[in-house]
Amino acid sequence: MARIVMKFGGTSMAGSERICNVAARVKRAVEAGDEVAVVVSAMAGETDRLVGYCHEAAPRAVGADFRAEYDVVVAAGEQVTAGLLAMTLQAMGVRARSWLGWQLPIRTSGAHSLARIEGIETEAVLAAMAGGEVAVVPGFQGLTAGGRVTTLGRGGSDTSAVAMAAALSAERCDIYTDVDGVYTTDPRIVPRARKLSRITYEEMLELASVGAKVLQTRSVELAMKEKVRLQVLSSFSDAPGTMVVDEDEDGEMERELIAGVAYDKSEAKVTLVGVPDRPGVVGAVFGPLADSGVNVDMIVQNIAKGEGHTDVTFTVPRAQLPLSLDVLEKAKAEIGFTALLSDAAVAKVSVVGVGMRSHAGVAATMFRALAARGINIQAITTSEIKVSVLIAEEYVELAVRVLHTAYGLDAPITEDEVSA
Amino acid sequence: MARIVMKFGGTSMAGSERICNVAARVKRAVEAGDEVAVVVSAMAGETDRLVGYCHEAAPRAVGADFRAEYDVVVAAGEQVTAGLLAMTLQAMGVRARSWLGWQLPIRTSGAHSLARIEGIETEAVLAAMAGGEVAVVPGFQGLTAGGRVTTLGRGGSDTSAVAMAAALSAERCDIYTDVDGVYTTDPRIVPRARKLSRITYEEMLELASVGAKVLQTRSVELAMKEKVRLQVLSSFSDAPGTMVVDEDEDGEMERELIAGVAYDKSEAKVTLVGVPDRPGVVGAVFGPLADSGVNVDMIVQNIAKGEGHTDVTFTVPRAQLPLSLDVLEKAKAEIGFTALLSDAAVAKVSVVGVGMRSHAGVAATMFRALAARGINIQAITTSEIKVSVLIAEEYVELAVRVLHTAYGLDAPITEDEVSA
Repeated sequence: MARIVMKFGGTSMAGSERICNVAARVKRAVEAGDEVAVVVSAMAGETDRLVGYCHEAAPRAVGADFRAEYDVVVAAGEQVTAGLLAMTLQAMGVRARSWLGWQLPIRTSGAHSLARIEGIETEAVLAAMAGGEVAVVPGFQGLTAGGRVTTLGRGGSDTSAVAMAAALSAERCDIYTDVDGVYTTDPRIVPRARKLSRITYEEMLELASVGAKVLQTRSVELAMKEKVRLQVLSSFSDAPGTMVVDEDEDGEMERELIAGVAYDKSEAKVTLVGVPDRPGVVGAVFGPLADSGVNVDMIVQNIAKGEGHTDVTFTVPRAQLPLSLDVLEKAKAEIGFTALLSDAAVAKVSVVGVGMRSHAGVAATMFRALAARGINIQAITTSEIKVSVLIAEEYVELAVRVLHTAYGLDAPITEDEVSA
Repeated sequence: MARIVMKFGGTSMAGSERICNVAARVKRAVEAGDEVAVVVSAMAGETDRLVGYCHEAAPRAVGADFRAEYDVVVAAGEQVTAGLLAMTLQAMGVRARSWLGWQLPIRTSGAHSLARIEGIETEAVLAAMAGGEVAVVPGFQGLTAGGRVTTLGRGGSDTSAVAMAAALSAERCDIYTDVDGVYTTDPRIVPRARKLSRITYEEMLELASVGAKVLQTRSVELAMKEKVRLQVLSSFSDAPGTMVVDEDEDGEMERELIAGVAYDKSEAKVTLVGVPDRPGVVGAVFGPLADSGVNVDMIVQNIAKGEGHTDVTFTVPRAQLPLSLDVLEKAKAEIGFTALLSDAAVAKVSVVGVGMRSHAGVAATMFRALAARGINIQAITTSEIKVSVLIAEEYVELAVRVLHTAYGLDAPITEDEVSA
């Protein structure tokens, strides 16, 4: 018997039949003796529908007043699924009630549409759960100190679930989704990708930030901070999932050097040629971009060539490339570059693993494996547990497969396959 | 400058374009200097969609726990339109915010899905309105003393609007709908039906209860009790509407004897033949029906014929006719009738007017006019300001036209019509 949080995403809640499937899963947990809080997303497509209404109502509105009403509108999606799941459970003979964001309440900052959870009052809900009642909580929503409805930003329901698990001191937070766990890489590219039984928070964070979209980065950060054990598993199968755990807890295991290989095709490369190599030039480049809300990622500044000039290369989100070029052209006099180049046909490929902290040569293996296939590296960035390279987009699938093999991640060949 | 409540129904709120039209109307009121609270329904069709989900989730559920979650689900419809209208107003440069049922709060009884409003806290909203901000309030929803969401029953938004007007001491409550006022009768049957510029609460109540579906009976009762001046007018035109007022206020006017002629085809007739004429027999008939939730309307007990037997005729809702017959058959031994007859092809036609309090002969005019056309009267009931007759359904349009003319309600023939 344990206290657990179960979180179900929009695909799992899309329609009465699927909600019934979710309720059956919750019922099994209750019958196993668990105290259960369930966090639910809106039905798949519903939030988009509501957001669409908001944009029709106020096409150009971005102010705080608009965002406060936006939150009132879009929070309705999770309110509906929370009520429906509670009554479906009741119909199956499981005692249940919904606890809306303002009822618990889930206290958040006042940053409408991007609010942060500040605290959750749990006395009443804990008493109800102790009495054998399932608590159904709409994800994504909260309440300001002033009593207004907030939402946490798209995908915020994972964060709601982790925050509930932390507030309830739950043994774990099970995130049910439409994939059955975290894989060593995208199985669509590498059929021999393996599902990981365990992964550390840090690895999960790095994988999430480089394009593996299983969990919201923010929810993993919160889980790491609050030491909430996360499990990712499928709503649609009974296969075991992936447990996201603390590195210490994971320490006993034999494990691979590298947890996974991720890729990201959403960035574009910008190069400023002939930038004067003088103090303050980096600020002249990146200051105006930051002021315009551009998220710069990889940055490479070459060693100054003769005559005190250098080239600066960096990546920005593809969607922000036109804005970025515009901002830089306007700052040309101040920066003093001779040419502005850009390339949207790039991809970032990353290998992630806490094992690289204690093993040298991880990056070298990567560079050798890519060079052997003639794949040119355009930029490199590293963190303590990640190495990322920028390459031409056309090579991305090849690079992922090559690296997956190079780090020994491929699943073993089965006897069936040998005999086939 | 006045403080007013404007209420918009589901047809008026169905989609962004119509919400924009509503916002433009509210803006005009604000620019005219009014302090405005707006009460909104869900988009037409949305409540049905949400109710459908509930029935799929729990096909047989009728308990209090189910109804508490039902309220959580269906209240979402008005939450969405309230947020959308507030942001649409903002986009038009009108300061506005939504006040959800739990935010004001609108305090209700704990009778989920059929809650009654017990009080509305208005201090904060009045301050906001005095500061020039439009208050947008979702209709239909409230909050129990225990902090749960309630709804007021279908069509409850009219009641929300009247309750808001009473709580805010508003000068009037304007109900915008898809018809442009209250007519002397159904214009589809009588092209010469006239729109009434004024009608009393009592007349409106009697008309509502006999099938004129412009306003919910409950909202008119509340308006009468709280002396809220109601105006019914169209969202889709600028034509003047109908003002529903107190009889005293209406006293100065020259007015017709009869305000309107209504009809209702939703009832069926039941006759018990040969019922023993003994004390307690009425209880034996109507007790079991009441216990089964059947709403009996007109009742006629004939004078006892020879041998101490009588016939009892009454009407029930057509939808409850099979249930009623079943209940009566089971009670046959106890009641002791000789035959049980029923007829669903009946209609009730009523004339309503406070003028009949001081004028004799209103009923006689009705009976003569119907008799002249050979229309047989099967049952009669009267109240202080209403006479209703039950007739064969096939005569209903004829009866309405005949009575409309007999009481002098037909609009005058215009010069255009004369020359045509």
